[in-house]
Amino acid sequence: MGDPQVLSYRPSAGEFAWTFGGVPPVARIRPGTILELWTEDCFAGRVRGPEDLVSRVCEGPYLNPQTGPFYVEGAEPGDTVAVHFVSVEPARDWAASTTVPLFGALTSTHLTATLQDPLPELVWIWELDRSARLCRFSARDSELTADLPMEPMHGTVGVAPANMEVRSALVPDAFGGNLDTPEMRAGVTCYLGVNVPGALLSIGDGHARQGEGETCGVAVECAMNSVVVVELLKGLATPWPRLESDTHIMSAGSARPLEDAFRVAQADLVGWVAGHTGLSMLDAYQFVSQAVEAPLANVVDTNYTSVAKLRKAWLPGGARPVMDGIHDQLREVAKSWR
Amino acid sequence: MGDPQVLSYRPSAGEFAWTFGGVPPVARIRPGTILELWTEDCFAGRVRGPEDLVSRVCEGPYLNPQTGPFYVEGAEPGDTVAVHFVSVEPARDWAASTTVPLFGALTSTHLTATLQDPLPELVWIWELDRSARLCRFSARDSELTADLPMEPMHGTVGVAPANMEVRSALVPDAFGGNLDTPEMRAGVTCYLGVNVPGALLSIGDGHARQGEGETCGVAVECAMNSVVVVELLKGLATPWPRLESDTHIMSAGSARPLEDAFRVAQADLVGWVAGHTGLSMLDAYQFVSQAVEAPLANVVDTNYTSVAKLRKAWLPGGARPVMDGIHDQLREVAKSWR
Amino acid sequence: MGDPQVLSYRPSAGEFAWTFGGVPPVARIRPGTILELWTEDCFAGRVRGPEDLVSRVCEGPYLNPQTGPFYVEGAEPGDTVAVHFVSVEPARDWAASTTVPLFGALTSTHLTATLQDPLPELVWIWELDRSARLCRFSARDSELTADLPMEPMHGTVGVAPANMEVRSALVPDAFGGNLDTPEMRAGVTCYLGVNVPGALLSIGDGHARQGEGETCGVAVECAMNSVVVVELLKGLATPWPRLESDTHIMSAGSARPLEDAFRVAQADLVGWVAGHTGLSMLDAYQFVSQAVEAPLANVVDTNYTSVAKLRKAWLPGGARPVMDGIHDQLREVAKSWR
Amino acid sequence: MGDPQVLSYRPSAGEFAWTFGGVPPVARIRPGTILELWTEDCFAGRVRGPEDLVSRVCEGPYLNPQTGPFYVEGAEPGDTVAVHFVSVEPARDWAASTTVPLFGALTSTHLTATLQDPLPELVWIWELDRSARLCRFSARDSELTADLPMEPMHGTVGVAPANMEVRSALVPDAFGGNLDTPEMRAGVTCYLGVNVPGALLSIGDGHARQGEGETCGVAVECAMNSVVVVELLKGLATPWPRLESDTHIMSAGSARPLEDAFRVAQADLVGWVAGHTGLSMLDAYQFVSQAVEAPLANVVDTNYTSVAKLRKAWLPGGARPVMDGIHDQLREVAKSWR
Repeated sequence: MGDPQVLSYRPSAGEFAWTFGGVPPVARIRPGTILELWTEDCFAGRVRGPEDLVSRVCEGPYLNPQTGPFYVEGAEPGDTVAVHFVSVEPARDWAASTTVPLFGALTSTHLTATLQDPLPELVWIWELDRSARLCRFSARDSELTADLPMEPMHGTVGVAPANMEVRSALVPDAFGGNLDTPEMRAGVTCYLGVNVPGALLSIGDGHARQGEGETCGVAVECAMNSVVVVELLKGLATPWPRLESDTHIMSAGSARPLEDAFRVAQADLVGWVAGHTGLSMLDAYQFVSQAVEAPLANVVDTNYTSVAKLRKAWLPGGARPVMDGIHDQLREVAKSWR
Repeated sequence: MGDPQVLSYRPSAGEFAWTFGGVPPVARIRPGTILELWTEDCFAGRVRGPEDLVSRVCEGPYLNPQTGPFYVEGAEPGDTVAVHFVSVEPARDWAASTTVPLFGALTSTHLTATLQDPLPELVWIWELDRSARLCRFSARDSELTADLPMEPMHGTVGVAPANMEVRSALVPDAFGGNLDTPEMRAGVTCYLGVNVPGALLSIGDGHARQGEGETCGVAVECAMNSVVVVELLKGLATPWPRLESDTHIMSAGSARPLEDAFRVAQADLVGWVAGHTGLSMLDAYQFVSQAVEAPLANVVDTNYTSVAKLRKAWLPGGARPVMDGIHDQLREVAKSWR
Repeated sequence: MGDPQVLSYRPSAGEFAWTFGGVPPVARIRPGTILELWTEDCFAGRVRGPEDLVSRVCEGPYLNPQTGPFYVEGAEPGDTVAVHFVSVEPARDWAASTTVPLFGALTSTHLTATLQDPLPELVWIWELDRSARLCRFSARDSELTADLPMEPMHGTVGVAPANMEVRSALVPDAFGGNLDTPEMRAGVTCYLGVNVPGALLSIGDGHARQGEGETCGVAVECAMNSVVVVELLKGLATPWPRLESDTHIMSAGSARPLEDAFRVAQADLVGWVAGHTGLSMLDAYQFVSQAVEAPLANVVDTNYTSVAKLRKAWLPGGARPVMDGIHDQLREVAKSWR
Repeated sequence: MGDPQVLSYRPSAGEFAWTFGGVPPVARIRPGTILELWTEDCFAGRVRGPEDLVSRVCEGPYLNPQTGPFYVEGAEPGDTVAVHFVSVEPARDWAASTTVPLFGALTSTHLTATLQDPLPELVWIWELDRSARLCRFSARDSELTADLPMEPMHGTVGVAPANMEVRSALVPDAFGGNLDTPEMRAGVTCYLGVNVPGALLSIGDGHARQGEGETCGVAVECAMNSVVVVELLKGLATPWPRLESDTHIMSAGSARPLEDAFRVAQADLVGWVAGHTGLSMLDAYQFVSQAVEAPLANVVDTNYTSVAKLRKAWLPGGARPVMDGIHDQLREVAKSWR
């Protein structure tokens, strides 16, 4: 294997994808390619100040623009695409968050339908201090401020869905998509099962930071300069999105109600641990039950997302590499880029 | 204030409480009292080896024995009891976990009713190495083992419920109870709203460790020697259980479906932050949305429990003490015991 | 068996029960007794006009007063109490309904917690024309009116819970309680499993009529003169409430989320049909799936309630009497009263 | 308006649609057209005997074949398509039902994930006596049989989704689709909001009968000869599917958890009643709460579906025609076909 191919891609205004599936690829890439990507924020860059209410400046399906999709050569249903996040860096020195009418966890919604009025629609512009790695919150109704650590991540990474479906970029599901988990950050590898030839990978929805659950429905949204390495695992099926960091393996389940998202993630992790360690399914159930962390991702999207997270060093038999050791390999490739 | 009163209490077999409410107090204590308690495990100590299936050795309501209740002098509805965990130490060098038929997150249950057979009923005996602070898992179906850090906690701490109710010790709700959150550990203060004169506090269900969500329904269950300080906050109502560590404040919501538990915890935390910092409710909503951690507690009990957790140092206006600064005071009291 | 014993009982203001369990019986009755009961409405009679907002005239646990409990002689855990509704007649020529802040299906609630304001609190006084059997709705915000058929029912019928619990009269669960199903009307027999000696049966919450789901959380609430016959089925356990009319058998499941209530009711009915007809469990599953009606009861209470309803004449093997034929016997006893 | 256009269409094996959206129309029709359609069963006709297990004879996305889509001339986003069912008649003298592994309400599923084994996979072939209008159930594990009334219906009727999405024909949502409500029968008009030019209407999934909730996940599935009239209501938006019979109006909400489907349907009906009668929203909430029926449709599909059903004669102000009186007009058109 020679030097990895590097593709830099910055979509212009008309070149975003608004769905997973149903869109022709913007480029074909070989497995191992390093992608240098620019992603726009979930508002398509239209929320720039306190007057830019989502209901006023955004419309219809044109939310959560995706950079992509990329056709991964050789990818076929039954394979897995590995996306290693080398770097996720805010592309602006500000980011926006908002309330959106009838969207979020602490409001009624179009599905949790009530007769109450929506909450007021407000915009918060966060200052990003990229050298200090801080996000500055400024209250709307008082002079109070607070600095939170910058912890950049991508809310959205996904491939085309199965069953001939095309899903809005706002949806998280088995194909990945709008998982909105703070775990999707630099240093992490995301594994996605391939459903269509070429996989059709796209990425978007950068967050300078996000709380677990994304309670108000909107994170600290900002455009990103991100670098990922894309690899292909032939003949290895991945039914639900999996993540791997240097220290943890994770499964991400997306469903409603939230306990079903939890069940999916935990069951996937139990199966993963059983398959990897040789534990029986019930032994793995017991082991995971005592060892797992369960950080919520989002409780606001079309499906809710729950993550099941396990420290690799704790696995019976030790931290033998999972997924053919691809994470460590991609860490090495990442170094070649820096 | 002189030296705190110390009460050591070790219930004998017939002296446990099996409910919150409906039981006369075992003792009256003054606010500020240090309680040195022994708590039995959730199996009432009956699961001692691989043959001790819960369905065989346990029966009916006699699960999750509580040590207490304690009548806190002066406590009245509208007040809050603060329970500071000074020390939580396994009382045995082993602990038990099990599957229980039709109980747990990855099985159908009496409520998530299906026509499938229950999972097999198994017991795992965990070795506790108290000096190394390790819990040793031994697989049932193979020779595999793994050591996990000992992180002792109490699954259950609660007061008598409101509305004249009496609830099984297996239930988590607004009165606390079987919250099953790993956050309930030494160094933490738990705040519970008082519903009846004397509050009627009880504690039980020690876990040598537990994963978030308590996936199989049962943690690493063991008897505990625990020390708590009990304080009373007059005229301060606490609608849902709150916790405070040296670094974080937390709200614990219990409900079904799980998104409702999430909503309760997050809304309580938003209200808490707004009241404490002077942020407007919507500013607090925005701030919490970006700053919160959302570790699940249990997704298996009568109600599911979700925790909303915020770093105190991040609060706008700085880490001014919450809840009248009682946590820091109790930390000092705790030192007097050691 | 001679003439049935008849007991007339009209509680005075201080004689209501506010919980299931935790209350001494008001009378002991022999199986077969006919009870002539007066029940107060769920507001304890305090909502009498448009100004009588629940938040103003009602308080704390004093909602949903129950007439009873009655100690059924000979009833022991493992038995079933059969309650046949001979007659359910509004005791007044008006009834009240309301919105209650943060209660109901089309509002956020204390559990489906949001930051929105509650809906406005309003009272509707319905006129009851008992000779024409009509309930007259008069709009608050216009001159519009509408007449709906009077279809009197009891929202609440229950026994003391299992596991030493005491539950608010607002709760529906395995012990019955606040099921709020329009199916609980004259001509119907309700079967409840006995959890404590004497069963401790109580009845309340009369509705002149109610929609399925009880959407706003409150029906057309009125005091009732009701006649029931109480019978005891020894050695027959009933895990969830069952109902029988001349034409249908029904199971009532109560849980959250609503799909769990559905699962409980359907699984109970499948088991009932299998046990009664000799169909295998999977054959009964198939048969019930094609034959069942699934009218919702309530989607507003502490637990939601779903009813699974099957026409007796459709059962394979014909309409052989279920539950030892007690329904038909009680129909005969009922005739003796008229 | 002259005689309605009549289009007879019987797709051959390769001509079915497997999604809503994403498929070119099979024909363009003018509003007012009568469609004489043949629809295949949900198994694509492959389950023909007890050995034809779904997991063996069906595959991947090729489930629930749709007849269509039809491009309705003049239909644009913001309009409503009215589909009046003139006739729904089984095309065979038998129908099939099955259990499907990890699908149905009384089993764990891919989302309600557990570690239990799936239920056994079985096929039931139902005999249809079309002259006697009966469906004959024959038990698999005994000699028992039962006759249930034939009540033919379509599980699936829908248009292309909004937001550029393409959804599997197994999905019910705001665009209609796999609602699986027994209310979708001859004599009923279904209203669907248009999301894309031409609406792209398709129909399938005939059931000789179905219980409410479709408990095992599969109805009495059979090919149908159906006749529908398709009309267009310009400038009238319909956010969720609505149905109208001679006696009732209905809203169908699809979501998870089931209480959200209930909320959607009830809120839509409350809004419909308010808009139609002039009742204020809260008066409509009160009125609907006391008058509504709430039959479940399905508790097994990707989204669950709940129906809110109101008797037109009960509406304040009387049974003035809803939806511009289109139902009565289509009833007249239907007569021209017979």
